Parts: sequence; C-alpha cells; structure tokens
Amino acid sequence: MREHVIEQLRRRGVTLKDVGELVYTLQNQYHRDLTVENCTHAVHDILAKREVQFAFLTGIAIDVLAEEEGFPQPLQEIVRSDNPLYGVDEVLALGITNIYGSIGFTNFGFLDRQKPGVLGRLNKEEKEKGRCHTFLDDLLAGLAAAAAARLAHARADAAESMDNGKPKVSQDGTGPLAGVS
Amino acid sequence: MREHVIEQLRRRGVTLKDVGELVYTLQNQYHRDLTVENCTHAVHDILAKREVQFAFLTGIAIDVLAEEEGFPQPLQEIVRSDNPLYGVDEVLALGITNIYGSIGFTNFGFLDRQKPGVLGRLNKEEKEKGRCHTFLDDLLAGLAAAAAARLAHARADAAESMDNGKPKVSQDGTGPLAGVS
Amino acid sequence: MREHVIEQLRRRGVTLKDVGELVYTLQNQYHRDLTVENCTHAVHDILAKREVQFAFLTGIAIDVLAEEEGFPQPLQEIVRSDNPLYGVDEVLALGITNIYGSIGFTNFGFLDRQKPGVLGRLNKEEKEKGRCHTFLDDLLAGLAAAAAARLAHARADAAESMDNGKPKVSQDGTGPLAGVS
Amino acid sequence: MREHVIEQLRRRGVTLKDVGELVYTLQNQYHRDLTVENCTHAVHDILAKREVQFAFLTGIAIDVLAEEEGFPQPLQEIVRSDNPLYGVDEVLALGITNIYGSIGFTNFGFLDRQKPGVLGRLNKEEKEKGRCHTFLDDLLAGLAAAAAARLAHARADAAESMDNGKPKVSQDGTGPLAGVS
Repeated sequence: MREHVIEQLRRRGVTLKDVGELVYTLQNQYHRDLTVENCTHAVHDILAKREVQFAFLTGIAIDVLAEEEGFPQPLQEIVRSDNPLYGVDEVLALGITNIYGSIGFTNFGFLDRQKPGVLGRLNKEEKEKGRCHTFLDDLLAGLAAAAAARLAHARADAAESMDNGKPKVSQDGTGPLAGVS
Repeated sequence: MREHVIEQLRRRGVTLKDVGELVYTLQNQYHRDLTVENCTHAVHDILAKREVQFAFLTGIAIDVLAEEEGFPQPLQEIVRSDNPLYGVDEVLALGITNIYGSIGFTNFGFLDRQKPGVLGRLNKEEKEKGRCHTFLDDLLAGLAAAAAARLAHARADAAESMDNGKPKVSQDGTGPLAGVS
Repeated sequence: MREHVIEQLRRRGVTLKDVGELVYTLQNQYHRDLTVENCTHAVHDILAKREVQFAFLTGIAIDVLAEEEGFPQPLQEIVRSDNPLYGVDEVLALGITNIYGSIGFTNFGFLDRQKPGVLGRLNKEEKEKGRCHTFLDDLLAGLAAAAAARLAHARADAAESMDNGKPKVSQDGTGPLAGVS
Repeated sequence: MREHVIEQLRRRGVTLKDVGELVYTLQNQYHRDLTVENCTHAVHDILAKREVQFAFLTGIAIDVLAEEEGFPQPLQEIVRSDNPLYGVDEVLALGITNIYGSIGFTNFGFLDRQKPGVLGRLNKEEKEKGRCHTFLDDLLAGLAAAAAARLAHARADAAESMDNGKPKVSQDGTGPLAGVS
C-alpha cells in the first residue's frame, strides 16, 4: 500500500524528497548532522502507517474529483477554491500529525502558513494551472510535521540510550534508530 | 446553507428528529424535564455552524460517490466496506464533536459503538440494501454528542444564572437559552 | 468566572489587549478595517466559554506549581524546563483552538513557532527571570488562533447576510455580530 | 521512564493487567485467540511512548495534588469533584488514544461511559473513599483504546503478510508482531 501512495504522490507531482526538504527546513537548526536524506527516510517510515496512507488516498481522491467537477454544488466550489473557512483538509492533516504526538502541531501550522518548498509550488499550480491541491498541501505539511516529531523523539531516545550505555533503539523499542545520523 | 444540509440529510433518510432522539437517549437521565423536541432544537442550532455544515456536505458526498463506484481502488473498496481500520470518518466526526468541547467525546464513542436508533437503522441499510453510510453514521453520532454537550453547558449556565439572580443567558452570552425547558 | 480568568492572566503579566495584538498580527492582512480593539473584543468573547476558562485555570495552576517546585520528579523538571517533547501544553491549547473549528490550527502553529508580541516576552521571562510559562504561552497562542477563526467566520457571515439583504447575525445565529467593524 | 509510570500506576492501585482486561473486553469478540496476556502485552508496549508517559505523569500528579487540596479555588473544587463539564481530562486522554489513529475514539467513549472493570472500581473509590481519579480513569480508558487499536492494526498486518506469503511484521515495519497470538 505504501508504494501505491508514493505512486499517487508522484502523479500529483510530489516526491518524498520534496517532503524530506520540508522536514529539513523545520529541523536542521536543532540537529547538527541532519541531512535531507535522513529526513526523507523518516518520511518514508511514516508512510508505512495505515492511518497515514488512508488519509492520503482520501485527500488526493477528493482533489482529483474536484478537478474533474465531480462534486455537487456548493461543495464543488468550496473544495475547488480552497475556501479558507473549509477546515476538513486541516482535520485530515491533523490525523497524520497526531501520530507522533502533539509536538507536531506547531510545525504543521508553521508550514501551512509559510508554505516553503513544495507547498509554495503546489499553491502556485493552483493559481496558475488550475490544479486543485486543497487537501494535498495540508496532508504534506502534516506528514512533514510528523516526520520532524519522529526525528525529535528518536534523537532524544538516542541521547537517553547513550546515557545508559545501551545500544540505540527507536522510541517504540522495536528496531534500529531510523533516519538519524 | 443549513437548509441545504437538512435537505441532504433527508435524501439520505435522516431527519433532525432522528438525531434529537439520539441526544435524548444520551441526556434524559441527567435532565429531568428534557424532551425530544428540546434535543431536536439543539441539533438544529448546531447545524448553523459552518464547520459542521462542511463536514456533512463532505461526508455525504463521499458516501454517495462510494455508492456510485466513483473512487479509484483500493479506496473505493475501503470506503464502501466501511473498513474498521479506516479512521477518516471518525476524524471528520470529531471535528463536529469538538465544537462544544471535549466533553462530547465520551458520548460520541458510546453512540458509535452501541448504534441506537437511526444509527442502527443506517447500519442495517448498509448490510441489507447495499447503501453506503460510512461517513454519515459517524457524523450523526458526532452531531448528537455535540448537541448533548451544548445542552449540558446550557443547563449549567442556567443554574449559575439562577444562583446569581440574573436572567438566563446562553453560554456564549449572546442570546436566550436554547433547547432547554 | 471570566473575570477570574482575566485576573489570573493579569497576575501572570498578560492583558487581553496583548492577545488582541496577536490576533491583529494574524488577521490584519485579510480584514481591511480591523483594529486591535475589535480583536481584543473577540478574545473577550471567547473567554466566555467554560472549556476555555477551564483550560486556562488548569494551565496557569500548573505553571505556578512548577515555579514553586510543587511537582514530583521527573515531571517537575520536564514542565519547568518546557521540554520540547512534552506535548501536554499543546494538547490543552488545541482544545481551545478547536472551538471555532480546525481553521485555527494553522495560526496556532505559526504563533507558537514565531512567538511574536507577548509570546516572545513570556519566553524571555522564562530564560531571564526564572518564570515558568510552559502552558501559558501555548494557551495564549490557542486563544489568539481561536479569536482569529471567530473573526474570519463572522466576516463571512456578514458577507453572506449582505448578499441576502438580511440583517447581520453572528455565526451561531443567536446575537449581533461581535468584534467586527 | 516506563518503569516509573508503572510504579506510579501501582501506587494509585492499578496494574497493567487491569488495563489489559479492559482491552480484552473491547476486542475479544473480534480476535478469536486473544488472551488477557496478549492485551496486557500491548498495553506495556504503548507505555514505551514518551507522549503517553508524559500524559500519565501529568494526570496522576494533578489527581494527587487535588487530593492534597493543592490547587487554588475554583479549580480545586472542579477537579476534586470531577465536574462533568471539565474536559481537560478527556483532552489529555485523547492525546493517548490518537497514537494509533482515530479508530480508538469509539472505544475510548464506550469505556468512559460504561466504566467496566478497573474504571468502575476507581469510580467507586472516588465516591466511597474520597480518592480523586479525575484524570486517571480517562487516561486508562485512552490507554486501553489505543492498545485495542494497536491490536486491530497488528491483526490486519498479519493477515496482509500471510496473503503475501511474507513473514509477519508489525505495522511500522520495524519488528516482530507484538501482543497477538
């Protein structure tokens, strides 16, 4: 299923590296040795979660249907125009951000308001090329925020493990520390 | 817009009184003089909120599209079968429940698991008549839980006002106490 | 109860106008005639909600107890140092932001990361004067984000009412349009 | 840290097996071979998450402070009496439930309203022995709901892996399938 989601993203013009770059923007001031590659790895890990996959499949399907005028009015116009009072896209995105806890909320909001990198590009495509990315931009911001939270937890886990003289383990205790140099 | 949402509900076989009855089930043990009519009134009030309207328009549109096989696979099958691991419907519903604060969460979960009244009927229609109510049943449970929270707040406001010898005002201080005898 | 919360804020060095200024920062590019006074009015309105009052009373009490070394370890150190992985403060703040729907999340995150106005001042007090505002800064960001969402909804309501030639009413249909010029 | 949380729970009279029994109540109709031991194992796994640990440390500290009359009025009375309009306890609990996605919300609400097992016992202690478990009962319901969601995801992962003829892996792809027979 993860591969299917990655393919859906690719069709909408988004690579995991684009999301990795958002994560890098958020985190590079806190992690000295962080690379975009580490960040992209963390994004890939989060896409293994079924909840995240379902949110992306749903949001992208809604964006595509809105481009094809597939919804009844007034919903068609509300989604197509990315009406600022329409909050369903944020609600879906927060379902992703939540997965590594509430520390991701701050980064979600920051990305959604500043729109760096791929988020700015999607926004521009909406205005200039008539695409609809009402859900996709929020979902990507949520994914990047969750990945940043995962890296922050992993970094703290590593620090705690080293204090204890134990080998590094990831926060859920089930495997090697991913995505951190 | 509220009238449009009420009409959409009617087309899916649901009246506000159906939802009022859910609220009554939740609250009648706490409010001595509560009637189904009071409860239905509270439901009507909540449907004035734009956030609630948008959630219903989106969820009902997804249900209808799933009945018409309008989504790509595997999303089509996931929504159509109301896959228990698909949580996007709950996420949307919680956006409604939130509006009167977190005290609504408990009632949402109770309704969603027990499926009294209209919720049981919708569930039966899914199994016996091939309808898709994946989003609608959760949204109605969220709406009923929000209405119950509104009634609980209004009841406390009334009690506080009487203590202070002031006229009854609603929680937001802007109007008469709605939906409470 | 609202007056009690306002007094608690005052003791922690925060006025409603401080919060109104955050709201103005968020919204002045969208509302041509907005004033800090309108924004402060919207903040005052939101403090009428019991859920918001309870969140502030709880968060401020925790901050004060942490200043007085009132918690057992390791919680005392986690709260006192505003540990970046401690997310309970964000969770409480989101309970406030939610009240006008999910559109407030973006602004919450933006404020929490950029820390303009009173948020920057509280942050500085933590570092230089040994105060603890672990919860207060997040709660104020959540309150300002909720007030911004309220203003955005009220503005849309006013526009819709004028389209319909009806008198202006607030979103919940219970009173006059507050806080918008 | 997990051991510290388990010790805190023990001092409040709660064992992980008590929580495992709540999970078993929720899930035994869906998993043929489920045992209370499997469920308790899943609860133990979730307590490895820092977010969950922080929520428990905070909530238990508040309950204990309320027993010791450690809060200013009116907060002291609100927490001590488990005021039904006080929603901060539910907000904290939902931070836990979220960790395995929104499918946990339904079970949280069901447990919180029905109060089976340890939840009923804590409730009785509040009424008969003057204890304060305002936060603890919600946090335990949230923990049990998250564990049930984890088991449901793990079961689906196992089914998918068997379909593919691959060895069983857990949902996050990093380790062996925990807590499922």
